[in-house]
Amino acid sequence: MKRIFNKETIKNIGQKARVAGWINSRRVHGKVLFIDLRDKSGILQVVFGEKNKEIYTQAQELRPEWVVEITGTVQKRPEGMINPEIETGEIELQAESIKILAKSEQLPFDIQELKVSLPTLLDYRPLTFRNQKIMAIFKIEDEIINSFRKTLRNLQFTEFQAPVIVPTNAEGGAAVFRIDYYDYDAYLTQSPQLYKQIMLNGFERVFTVNKVFRAEPSVTTRHLAEYTSLDMEMAFIDSWEDLMEIVETVIRNMLSDVKNNCSKELKILGAVLPQLSDKFPQFKMREAQQIIFERTKRNNRKEPDLEPADEKEICDFAKEKYGSEVVFITHYPTKKRPFYTHPDPADEEYTLSFDLLCRGLEVITGGQRINDYAQLISNIKKWGNDPKDFEYYLQTFKYGMPPEGGFAIGSERVVKQLLGLENVREASLFPRDMERIDGRMSLMQPKKKTTKTKGEKQTKKTKK
Amino acid sequence: MKRIFNKETIKNIGQKARVAGWINSRRVHGKVLFIDLRDKSGILQVVFGEKNKEIYTQAQELRPEWVVEITGTVQKRPEGMINPEIETGEIELQAESIKILAKSEQLPFDIQELKVSLPTLLDYRPLTFRNQKIMAIFKIEDEIINSFRKTLRNLQFTEFQAPVIVPTNAEGGAAVFRIDYYDYDAYLTQSPQLYKQIMLNGFERVFTVNKVFRAEPSVTTRHLAEYTSLDMEMAFIDSWEDLMEIVETVIRNMLSDVKNNCSKELKILGAVLPQLSDKFPQFKMREAQQIIFERTKRNNRKEPDLEPADEKEICDFAKEKYGSEVVFITHYPTKKRPFYTHPDPADEEYTLSFDLLCRGLEVITGGQRINDYAQLISNIKKWGNDPKDFEYYLQTFKYGMPPEGGFAIGSERVVKQLLGLENVREASLFPRDMERIDGRMSLMQPKKKTTKTKGEKQTKKTKK
Repeated sequence: MKRIFNKETIKNIGQKARVAGWINSRRVHGKVLFIDLRDKSGILQVVFGEKNKEIYTQAQELRPEWVVEITGTVQKRPEGMINPEIETGEIELQAESIKILAKSEQLPFDIQELKVSLPTLLDYRPLTFRNQKIMAIFKIEDEIINSFRKTLRNLQFTEFQAPVIVPTNAEGGAAVFRIDYYDYDAYLTQSPQLYKQIMLNGFERVFTVNKVFRAEPSVTTRHLAEYTSLDMEMAFIDSWEDLMEIVETVIRNMLSDVKNNCSKELKILGAVLPQLSDKFPQFKMREAQQIIFERTKRNNRKEPDLEPADEKEICDFAKEKYGSEVVFITHYPTKKRPFYTHPDPADEEYTLSFDLLCRGLEVITGGQRINDYAQLISNIKKWGNDPKDFEYYLQTFKYGMPPEGGFAIGSERVVKQLLGLENVREASLFPRDMERIDGRMSLMQPKKKTTKTKGEKQTKKTKK
Repeated sequence: MKRIFNKETIKNIGQKARVAGWINSRRVHGKVLFIDLRDKSGILQVVFGEKNKEIYTQAQELRPEWVVEITGTVQKRPEGMINPEIETGEIELQAESIKILAKSEQLPFDIQELKVSLPTLLDYRPLTFRNQKIMAIFKIEDEIINSFRKTLRNLQFTEFQAPVIVPTNAEGGAAVFRIDYYDYDAYLTQSPQLYKQIMLNGFERVFTVNKVFRAEPSVTTRHLAEYTSLDMEMAFIDSWEDLMEIVETVIRNMLSDVKNNCSKELKILGAVLPQLSDKFPQFKMREAQQIIFERTKRNNRKEPDLEPADEKEICDFAKEKYGSEVVFITHYPTKKRPFYTHPDPADEEYTLSFDLLCRGLEVITGGQRINDYAQLISNIKKWGNDPKDFEYYLQTFKYGMPPEGGFAIGSERVVKQLLGLENVREASLFPRDMERIDGRMSLMQPKKKTTKTKGEKQTKKTKK
């Protein structure tokens, strides 16, 4: 008999079924022993009556997280025993045979309660994937990424795999991680930006779901050293506002896909999706600063960027005034954006760029790019770089490139904001930061700086 | 008027259309000037008659790869002018206005002919994306990855994003790239193997499309320093042969998806997809060596692995005898496989592992893994590692894990073999090897080894 998922048993009432999973819990009521069997699809109640002594005795041995395979008959639960909280709540499996596939050692804490601090949770990340709330977060993350793909494919975008190893970090901005690349130095990519633009040669509309890396030497609730970026780039735009229209479509589809396909997960997490208005409100950065000043008397009107408190404030305003929990901020100063950002022809101090904030945090960044070869070379120089280092990239523009632009979505940040999580690490399967790669670095290896030689020995040793 | 793709004009005969793209070619026939306009969707013939002097003169200026936007009327081509080679071969656009969006400098070579060596092709990779054969290769690669995703989602697999930065390279095997990770050493992942297994906690069936890295100090036609791995892992298998069944489904679906959705691309490339038999033939490695010995008198029967010539030979045999251009080789020696590989209970010198070879090259590797905690710890020690370094991973098994296994597909290798490309670099958008990251490293930066200090200065400089 083929094993079926717990959820599928509800279609098999009165029939035999073979199921398998982990023991979620075990309890005895009078002469009957119940286990809740957990698999990928959810929980199934399995009943062991005293009549079948052999397997009743076997079942008494079972402990949480043991892995078992059970065959039995699917039956309706008696009146009054129905559990509306679970999908299989109207049925149960009357066990006829049981096979123990693996035992578990004593658990360090109750996995379903999961009352532990964030560091402990991350130390035990593998084990915590057995918790239904943790699973729900990542089911929703998968849905969001999937939704991004679907929306862009429908708009004739082609997916590509952007490179991780890059030759220079000359794009500027954030700090980067250096790699020993054979006899040379190389770096972990900060963004697929230059490659997205390169792909426009021929492909015109591209997107990529890729890991990007930021070596920021700080620990916040919003930053990860490695995160998943959902990136798109599009040629032949009529205006940079074409991009913001696509942002709207992407976000609306994400929310409706999560709503339609993850209702169970939203319920488990007690999450309420953000409210959207008919059209996303948008403000120039300077307008936003003025609004913030009027509301709070905080005078950041000359600042070149919004600080975290400003992002929260303008989101509050957009929600109050427009009923929208997302808001576009546009026209960031030219000096604060990378060399390829298109200046606003009406005022070259500012750019044709935008961020989308959601519930107080930036989750998307985008804008039009410079497509004119001479202008791009001039900007590379202005930003203190040598066009020779960009020869590969510059082919794209040297041989003719139409107006174009794109945006990038931080997938963990979107999940954090949609679900109201406190720390972006909760939305990352395997968060990496200054102190942690899986386990805590300090427990795993000596600091490189202690003695250079020791660090090198360590490397050689693990390379063996 | 909204711009439409060239391909869409065939639905608009007799109507106005606005199109945009790159000048693929320009020619004059008597008093009529023709351009072939190229966009993402293909080629469209645009006609400029002498009557409309102004735009006829403008059109005379146009050069290959200039970017233009044209509005005009879609009309049927005159009898005898039909071109069956292109999708828009029965129509043309009578130009009414033209706007130059960008000019191109003189091209280094004919992009459509593309008669250049592989190193030159890769030096000009961005530009070569404008060639229809190059585009066809990566359209097919996208289709293959998409097909993998579809097949596994249909089988209730969940996609996840595996990490790139890993704390140790203790999995063993291939050489790894070291990263300066804040104050510590870290490494680029060689495979998502340990994380796939970790994800089975809760998710049971997972897959990931991710970059993996091999620091092999050699240059071959089969290896890349960075490549895209299509990885899956599945718990609650009844037998390791369940995995081979899924391989068959994945491969059959890939070939039929490419056949159905990329017929134009296959034609452009002149590629013929591999022939499959009803059931993929399979041989134990020792059986394969015996067959090879009988066919060639090459005696590799005591070797622990197949060498490239052996892989070719056994593929020839499978094609001749079974009409299959793919073949499974199973039961590789325990010593040659990683610590987590499940030994064959019938003969522990060999493993429950398999490779799939296609047209002479290994494209998939997989097998059952050890799921028993004590056995896994014992093997980690046997392989010369310290279980303490695997505590994070080992949680998965300490708290109960059913029988499980999985496999990994090298996506560039599959594309190379399906399309009969000579070098795996042709199937990689941005190939990285000992000598190249985008451009040739030797032209871009000094060797680290020349002077250590110089290398460090270089790092600091680019970090600015």
